[in-house]
Formats: sequence, C-alpha cells, structure tokens
Amino acid sequence: MYRTHTCGELSLSSAGTEVILCGWVQKSRDLGGMTFVDLRDRYGITQLVFNMEENTDLCGRARKLGREFVIQAKGTVRERSNKNRNIPTGEIEIAVDELTILNRSEIPPFTIEEDTDGGEELRMKFRYLDLRRSSVRNNIILRHKVAQEVRRYMDSEGFIEVETPVLIKSTPEGARDFVVPSRMQPGTFYALPQSPQTLKQLLMVSGFDKYFQIVRCFRDEDLRADRQPEFTQIDCEMSFAGRDEILDTFEGLARHLFKQIKNIGFSEPFRKISYHEAMSFYGTDKPDLRFQMKISELTDLAKGHDFPLFDSSEYIGGICAGSCSEYSRRQTDELTEFVKRPQAGAKGLVVVRYETDGTFRSPAEKFFSSQDFTDWAALMDAKPGDLMLIVAGDKRRAQPALGELRLEMGSRLGLRVKGEFVPLWVVDFPLLEWDEETRRFYAMHHPFTSPKPEDLGLMETDPARVRADAYDLVINGVEIGGGSVRIHDAEIQKLMFKVLGFSGKEAEEQFGFLLNAFRYGAPPHGGIAFGFDRWVAMFGGQDSIRDFIAFPKNNSGRDVMLDTPSRISEKQMEELHIKIAGEKGK
Amino acid sequence: MYRTHTCGELSLSSAGTEVILCGWVQKSRDLGGMTFVDLRDRYGITQLVFNMEENTDLCGRARKLGREFVIQAKGTVRERSNKNRNIPTGEIEIAVDELTILNRSEIPPFTIEEDTDGGEELRMKFRYLDLRRSSVRNNIILRHKVAQEVRRYMDSEGFIEVETPVLIKSTPEGARDFVVPSRMQPGTFYALPQSPQTLKQLLMVSGFDKYFQIVRCFRDEDLRADRQPEFTQIDCEMSFAGRDEILDTFEGLARHLFKQIKNIGFSEPFRKISYHEAMSFYGTDKPDLRFQMKISELTDLAKGHDFPLFDSSEYIGGICAGSCSEYSRRQTDELTEFVKRPQAGAKGLVVVRYETDGTFRSPAEKFFSSQDFTDWAALMDAKPGDLMLIVAGDKRRAQPALGELRLEMGSRLGLRVKGEFVPLWVVDFPLLEWDEETRRFYAMHHPFTSPKPEDLGLMETDPARVRADAYDLVINGVEIGGGSVRIHDAEIQKLMFKVLGFSGKEAEEQFGFLLNAFRYGAPPHGGIAFGFDRWVAMFGGQDSIRDFIAFPKNNSGRDVMLDTPSRISEKQMEELHIKIAGEKGK
Repeated sequence: MYRTHTCGELSLSSAGTEVILCGWVQKSRDLGGMTFVDLRDRYGITQLVFNMEENTDLCGRARKLGREFVIQAKGTVRERSNKNRNIPTGEIEIAVDELTILNRSEIPPFTIEEDTDGGEELRMKFRYLDLRRSSVRNNIILRHKVAQEVRRYMDSEGFIEVETPVLIKSTPEGARDFVVPSRMQPGTFYALPQSPQTLKQLLMVSGFDKYFQIVRCFRDEDLRADRQPEFTQIDCEMSFAGRDEILDTFEGLARHLFKQIKNIGFSEPFRKISYHEAMSFYGTDKPDLRFQMKISELTDLAKGHDFPLFDSSEYIGGICAGSCSEYSRRQTDELTEFVKRPQAGAKGLVVVRYETDGTFRSPAEKFFSSQDFTDWAALMDAKPGDLMLIVAGDKRRAQPALGELRLEMGSRLGLRVKGEFVPLWVVDFPLLEWDEETRRFYAMHHPFTSPKPEDLGLMETDPARVRADAYDLVINGVEIGGGSVRIHDAEIQKLMFKVLGFSGKEAEEQFGFLLNAFRYGAPPHGGIAFGFDRWVAMFGGQDSIRDFIAFPKNNSGRDVMLDTPSRISEKQMEELHIKIAGEKGK
Repeated sequence: MYRTHTCGELSLSSAGTEVILCGWVQKSRDLGGMTFVDLRDRYGITQLVFNMEENTDLCGRARKLGREFVIQAKGTVRERSNKNRNIPTGEIEIAVDELTILNRSEIPPFTIEEDTDGGEELRMKFRYLDLRRSSVRNNIILRHKVAQEVRRYMDSEGFIEVETPVLIKSTPEGARDFVVPSRMQPGTFYALPQSPQTLKQLLMVSGFDKYFQIVRCFRDEDLRADRQPEFTQIDCEMSFAGRDEILDTFEGLARHLFKQIKNIGFSEPFRKISYHEAMSFYGTDKPDLRFQMKISELTDLAKGHDFPLFDSSEYIGGICAGSCSEYSRRQTDELTEFVKRPQAGAKGLVVVRYETDGTFRSPAEKFFSSQDFTDWAALMDAKPGDLMLIVAGDKRRAQPALGELRLEMGSRLGLRVKGEFVPLWVVDFPLLEWDEETRRFYAMHHPFTSPKPEDLGLMETDPARVRADAYDLVINGVEIGGGSVRIHDAEIQKLMFKVLGFSGKEAEEQFGFLLNAFRYGAPPHGGIAFGFDRWVAMFGGQDSIRDFIAFPKNNSGRDVMLDTPSRISEKQMEELHIKIAGEKGK
C-alpha cells in the first residue's frame, strides 16, 4: 500500500497515529537542526519534519530532496508548535521516520506556485505541470462538479443522455466543418459535428421525449480570443412542450446549478425581455443587468435644433452616468475615444454635465436651451450631479455603441459586481438576417428555428420582420445558452428553406434525412444548448475559458504540448487517398 | 400546455380525472360503434376510446387517424371493462372528447412493432423510426442509466471526470488513426484518439490522483462484425495505487453496476487467474466461467503409445463433456468438424466414450489399454456416462481449439445460462508479442504497461518471458475491460522502447511529451478502460452492441441514415489544402 492518508485530511484528532503519505515536494526549508518539507497532493499540503539530531541520515536525505520529487513518507502525526491557520492541515505535522523517493524531478521550467513565473506559452507547453497549480486544478475539479450536477438535474427531470455520433455529415450551412477522410470509401469524408442539432431533432422524432448530452462540438473558425476549435455544449431537447415550459425547465437547471455550485438562490423568476427591448434599452442582445443605466432614445427631442450631428442622424440615444458630472475633460475625452474605437463604431460622443447646482454644461450648449436639457434629463432620469452621454448616428451602429459605453461606465462605476449574478431570458429574436454581400437571408439561429406563429403571414411578404420563437439565457452580459422552438411541420420547413434561397434539391441534399423524418410524425419540440466551458468559467469567476479546459489549444488552434496538428506519413495519406495540394504526390 | 400526463402513468386511482395526452397512434381498431386507439409515447401506451353514438363527428375523425400520426387527446380517465393486465395502464382508458392532429405521418417503411417486418438495412436507413420500437428505445435508456451509475460510483470514490481533447496527434503505434486536415496549418493533421491513454497518464503526472471519463474513441480498422469506428470507453486512471488496490476499486465499480442495474450481488471476491492458467485450463484469455469443464493436459500420459497423431504432437489435451457418452456418431462428427474449422484450427478430434457400464469405446482404442483410458478419466475427472474429447497438435493451436470446443459443449449442454454472470480478473499477461512478419516485438497491451518488477531482469535477456502487470475484467467469456500498472520510471520506459525496437529519436517523436513529462516527477499509477458499448449490451442481454448505440454505423463504416461519409465541395478541399489522390485538382 502506497499511503494510508492523503495530504489534505489529517488534523489534530489523528495526533499520535502512524501514517504513510505520498505526494510531491512543494518546498523544503532547513531551520537549524530541523528540515521541513511541504508535501503536496490533489487534496492538500501536509508538513513533514525531519530532525537532524534524532536521525542524521534520514534528515540528510530529506535535505537533498528537490522540488517536485515524488516521495513516500512514513511517520507519526503530531501537533505543530507553529500552527498555520490558513490550511486545513495546518495544526499538525508528520515526524517522519521512513522516506522513499518514488521518482525524481528535474527542475521544472517554471515554479509550481500560484504566482508562477511561467509565461502563457511555457505553461501551455508544459500544461501537465501547469495543472499542478491549485488554481488551475481547482478549475478542472469545478468543471467535474458542474457536469455532475447538470446530469443529476437532467436525470431527475426525466431527460435521457444519448450519445450522438462524432463522425457525421458535412453541411455547408453554418460555420466551417472539420472533416475526416474515409479510407474505405475513397474521395469521401465524414465531418465533425458543429452541434448535434439535427440528431437531437431526430431523437425527438423517435419519441425520446426528453434528451440531453454533454457533448464535444467542433468549429473550424479563425479563432478569436477565447474560442476553441473543440468546445463542450450541454445540448438539450424536449417534445410536447411550448416555449414557456421549455424555459421553465432550463431555468430550473440554472437555479439548480447556482444553488449547488455557488449556493445562490434567486427569489424572482428570471426576467424575460425581447430582443427589441434588449437592443433599445441596453444596445446589445446580451445585456448585463447587474446595473440599470438604460439607454433613452432622444431622437424626437434632440432633432431639429440645427445641431448638424443630430440633424443628420437617424437615431439619437443616451445614457445617464450617475454622479459623474465632475468627470474631468480627460475622462470625457477617454469616453469619446472609447465610443469611436472600431469595435464600438460611433462617430462621436456628446457630453452633457448636469451640474450639482442644477445647470447644464455641454459642448453642444449653443444649440440647446436649458429647458431642452431639462427635458432630456427627465427622459433619462438624470439628477443634478449626473453625466448624460449622448451618441447619434445610424441606429444599428449607435445602439451597440451606447451598449458598449454603458458597460464601460458600469465597470468604471463598480456596478458590475463580481460574485453577483443576474440571469435573464432574451426572447423573440428576428428569424432571419439579411446579408448584403451574398444578397440573401440567413437563419439567425439555424434553419430549423420556428417563426412565431403570429408572424407566419410575413414569411413571404416581409421576412425581415418575422420573429423567431428563439431565446437566449444571458447572465451578466454573457450568452450562456440559446435555443428555440423548432419547426415540426414539413410545410413550414419547406417555406423556411425557400426564404433562405435553398432549392428543393439543395435542401434535400443537405437535410434530406431530417426532412424525410418529418414525414413520419414529428412531435412539436424545442430545446437549448448551453456553452459548458463558458458557464463553468463564469462559476469560476473568470472571463477566459482556457483554464477550465484541461488541454486547451492556442489561438492558432495548436496544442503546443502535443505539438499538433502535425505531419502524417506518406503511407497514411496514401491509404486515405489524399494528397497535400501544392506538394508532389508519390 | 400540450399534455397533463404521459401515456405511461395513469391508473385506476385517476378514474374520473380530465386529462390531456399526446403521442403517436400505435394502432386503432373499430369495433361496432366504438373506436379504440392505442396512444404511444416513451413512457407507455394508453387506450383512447371514441364512441360513434355519443360523438359521431369526433369518432369519424378518429377512424381516419393513420399509424404514427401525432395527436393530442383530451378526455376523462375511466375504468376499462376489458382489462389488459400486461401493461401498467391496462386497467384504464380515456373517453376522448377533444382530438387534435399535431402532425400526420406517411405509412412507415416498416411496422413500428417489436416483431417488425423491416430488415436490418431498412431499419438502419430509418433509424429514427427503428428507435421508436420499445426494445431499441429501452436499450438506449439502459445505456443512460448505466452511464449515470458509472458516474455516481466514480464520483463517490473521488474520481474526477476530465474531458480530454478529441483533436490530438497521430501516433503510428497501434491501430490506424482517423485524421483531420488543418486549414490553418497547411499540410498538417490532427488525429482522433484511439484512447486517451497518454493524456490520462499526463493527468496523473499533473497530480489529479483519480481520473475517469466516459469518452468517445476512434479506430480506422477494417470492421469485423460488431465493431464500430467510433466507440465509447469508461477510461480510468489512479495514482499511488498498486495492482490490487486498482483491481479492488474497479471490482467495486462492477459490483455497483451489477447491483444497481441487474440487482445482482456477488458474495465472493472476483476470482483472479493468470493468463497462463487461463490458456491452460480454458484455452482462451477470456474464459467463460459459468461452467467448469476445464482442459486437462494429457501430453505425458498419452504419448508413446504408437498413436501417430499423438506421438507427432507437441501437446495433447482434452475436456470431459458430462453425460454425453451416448452422443451419436453424427454428433461427434459435428464436433470434429467444429474443431477443424479454420477459426478453431485443430487437425482433428479423438473421442473416447466412457460408457455407463465402465468400459471405454474410442476409434483410438487399439493404441490404448483400458487402464490408459482409466488414467485419462482420473485426470479429467470423468465418470461413466461422460464423453472425453481430445485434441492434439501445436500447443498454441490446440489450446485455443479446445477452448472453442469447451464453449461449444457449454452451449450444447445449456451451461452458459443467460442471466447468470461470472466475472473474473485475468492477470499477468505477457508483456510482449513477437511478430514473425516484421520480426520485432510489439507491446501486447501498449508501450506504457509496466513489466512485473520480478521479471525486469529478463527484459533484455528473454523478453518473451516477461510478464506484464496487466489485467482484464472478463465476464461470461467477454473481455469487458483491460488495463495495467504503468511504467512511471523514465529508465524503464526507455528500456521498453528499446525492446520494441524504437530508436531514441522515434520514441521522442511519437511520445516526446510523455517522456518529457516523466522527467518532472511522475507518480506510480495505473488504470483500466472498459468497453462501455459492450458492457451495456451485456446488461441488456444481447451479444451485438449495435442496438445499444443510437446512431450506429454499418460494417463498411457508413451511416446509412445520414448517408455519410460523402463528398465535400471543391472549396472545402481547397481551404484544407488537400486533393483527392487520382483526381485532377483545380
């Protein structure tokens, strides 16, 4: 037997017990005639003591232990004279009388400490050492706990976890597929799923009634920051349920997780706001509702005063930053720069200071009377001492710019409180998006999303105005999940493909199996998929998902530890009937 | 709300209640003035009744319902006059007063019944309809339950489920990899994992201590019957544990599953038998121990009696088939043919009848005395009335042939009882296998399997004799899982690669990251991987895994429902920098 206990479980109640521990040498200190070794494993750190007088040979060997050596130590638990109240095992130490080196270690390329000296790239190359750091390890353990709780809840609600295939068929609609050449059928390929969307719909046609899966998905995209080519979804679908039943079910999942993982309860039902409202009041379809600071539209009030910027703009809107009237010129200039960045994309920012004495001060003051500003303030709910920040321009650019500005002000004012969570449902998304370049509509969600029944009449006359029975779960400004009621009627599905510009043949080629399936009694159904990596990172209190994935890839899609993607042999390529383009075949 | 209840939950206690049900029309019958419709969902079947006299219009509509129509029915629960005791809902029916057709169905290509008229291929093409059959659906639900129980047990034992990447690096050792061309790094490929073997070992180096994962794995093999190119493993690894602790832990998993899934307990610890014993006594490394019928070696006893077959053979062995002395000539001829099939590969079979009167009868009787036969019978534990079946030849062919014959006799004699389970551990496998063709040793398990410490000295002198600290869990003649204690010492790992004929450079190229990791303090560790599909099929009482996978592939690796693998567009191939060999590029 290698050990009797782990390094995280001994306390004063075990004093006097003979124990065997195993682990890694975190660090060692020689103090006079004593040597102290911090022994680390997944469960904690326990202090080992060696006494030079009592056992010179053993203590001498202990002094030669290097960092990260793997050792086994046998000894007696005793009370520490110098207690460490910061760790659970801090009241005891082990007086060691046998020491075995199980494995040596070279000096690690960076220190295995919370404040490591290793840069990102080095830590990724030696990810197995990075994972020894307790913060990273705890993220992965958190991930396990969240997955367990997801399964516990879904199982208790009667959902069946069904594994869907990873080797499926490439469908050009959507993002780019990763593909896998077939050896047995020359010239053909499997594709890796971007999501099990069509397969879970088939499971509904099969009568599974309630399905879920924690499932790996793949997208061959140019990686933006914090995107991974492979990522994990909590994928869910249910039959004979309308939108509100679906939302209730998954609100239940969210509540269960918040309770089990963060011990947070929500007394009120999650708010539901429409996409239209979200854009109007928060300038985004994923508003952070930890703070108010709603956008007010000033178009009617502010136009027609000969202020050229306003008069030439389709839309004028503003937010009120509480108690910021004394912002310095430098600070307001920063905000102006902020909204003019390409990501925000506004033409400029008009600042109106509502001074504590009740007067207004603004670069635009020659165009507007005090009464005008008072009217704006009333609309924006501004009080003396507040700062009104106005953006004008095309609505589709000005609203998001105001949304960005709102988040920036929320951050500056400390309103985006860490550890506070405000979940909400954003509903009634547009069904379609127009793409100028290809001059066609694309499904905003995917081609199986149901139009709202009351908007069906607009499908052929005014597709842009059709709303979808689609919804997102948004928490603190992050889209955690999204889904929709699906089309279960073959006729509506055909209409959808028609509006998307698919010929019957194309639709048949790409989604034939699903359209076929719908001919044999598809039940009404709908579902949702949650970004599992993202949700775990949120529970872990971090913005980046990378440290919640055991072996992540970098921004070029490389695993620098495994050193992949990499060359394969000529023989492999021959067997797969493929050649590298631009290289000579054999 | 679509429904108040499912089709599987109503009973007499609900009589008089108004309910709404949804589901599929299983079948309908018109009897005089009444129409009965069996409504089916995942949870069961409930009978709907329509009365022509009470509601002519409604009953008329019910009569037009086709099989597999999706309907919603509102009505009152009432006691049936003609009860069906075979189903839980058989005491009640619903007197319907509202009927809505939610979706129509064309006539399915085969009947959705347990005894379907659909052939294998048709059912696979319309898998979503095949999954409506309760037997197939119940297999998938069983799979969910087993997965839940695996996770429950592993979590309770302190194992962390860690998701390892699917896009990894190709390693030529082992079976053929599926590969994925990289778009961002022209000419390079990811590979799909045959197992997360090296990654789970890295997690041990990271100090995760106890890891598991229910994980998809991939092998691009020529598919034998009942193999799938993608399959699921329960993959496990633990640190600071020796072989017996590892076996105890996973015996615990097996016991937990048998108890929870089959309500079967085992009073005794699982037997452990060595590979050598298994081959000697059962002629296979995965013996079915539901019955005895051990192989007895007769080489010493039976040689030297001028019987040419025996005298020219390296090995002579036999089994005793109880109470079979009266087998007809036809029956013993069948057995002779059986052992001569290429799969069994024996040269022939010598039959000795131990008659009930105590005499012996055999085609070989002129070579042996009655005392000779009596000696054989004593060794084989044969009694009057038994049949002794003897095979001679090369040991490495004769033993497996006897193993096959033993299974055949077990089946003929009804000794392989369905529903009875005998799990055992086969241990101490050979570390290496010699391959005549390439004239080198291959790792029998994989290159990271630890030799038994007491055999280390033979590594360079007599590698063929080195035993591995490897083990298989075998149940009823099926290998359910296998694993080993791993090499954690870099020097032994180097020695292993040397014996396998890897140059330092090759080892570095293929497993560099693992060898590197071992330089920084690898703990002693070991693990196991179970074939999840196979285990679920065993719990489901079936030999084939296919019906325990929602969307399986056929023997050519095709998904005939999705119609994949399939062609991809020229644009996709261009982006991936690949061409089909033998086709003109653009």
